[in-house]
Amino acid sequence: MKEILIGADHAGFRMKESLKKYLAGLNIRVKDYGTNSEESTDYPPIAGKLARDVARGKEGILICGSGIGMSIAANKIHGVRAAVCHNEFTAQVAKEHNHANVLCLGARDINEKTAKKIVKKWLKTAPSTEERHKRRVNEISDLEC
Amino acid sequence: MKEILIGADHAGFRMKESLKKYLAGLNIRVKDYGTNSEESTDYPPIAGKLARDVARGKEGILICGSGIGMSIAANKIHGVRAAVCHNEFTAQVAKEHNHANVLCLGARDINEKTAKKIVKKWLKTAPSTEERHKRRVNEISDLEC
Repeated sequence: MKEILIGADHAGFRMKESLKKYLAGLNIRVKDYGTNSEESTDYPPIAGKLARDVARGKEGILICGSGIGMSIAANKIHGVRAAVCHNEFTAQVAKEHNHANVLCLGARDINEKTAKKIVKKWLKTAPSTEERHKRRVNEISDLEC
Repeated sequence: MKEILIGADHAGFRMKESLKKYLAGLNIRVKDYGTNSEESTDYPPIAGKLARDVARGKEGILICGSGIGMSIAANKIHGVRAAVCHNEFTAQVAKEHNHANVLCLGARDINEKTAKKIVKKWLKTAPSTEERHKRRVNEISDLEC
């Protein structure tokens, strides 16, 4: 059974709860990294904890107000490629070209319907095996040294 | 005179040239990190080179097809907070809340008019001095260790 890690700050809490139900409906197991209310909380520790587990071969979704704070924080972890996506086009190329293993969403930027479309597109798109995309992903790893 | 570093891959080349003119019109000096044509090129080395200079206290703009590849690569450099923005809302919060020092744009996702609005919003917005935002930016640095 496929598993997706999911985390959010207070701004993304409601969208996280909605996406948990959506993923369950797709027969995907969800591991929740919090937060568990709309009380103000800091996004980097949540991003860091989830991203370290993604680096061990998982995939995850992180949600904050814009998706940006989560993506900056998650990308600090080696092996993580976190992509802020706001539509199906960006979701597709993030997975296809950039082999994004963390999807970041902005709960104050997009609505839940759009979020579900983005999640679906990201889940069903395969990383490209074309040489140029694989080479570029390896060049990202080189920057982590 | 304010200076902005700018770089793009082949997909972002035309938007880079357009933004260079736009920035010059705002009386901003521009340092160009390439690429200099629409011939296919790899984004991570360009992102890495620009990001290392941003880490020394500059600000930069990176453009690829979606903005995502550039943002993943740039965020690998310590001290860099690279934000993919697709509208004025995300540009504002990226600078205000996340203190983004690199703005990433997707030339296949947004048009030049929108790109200029985003650049303008990002340039004119100040990083928030509110304690919670400063604390979260410091928590991002903690993840780089």
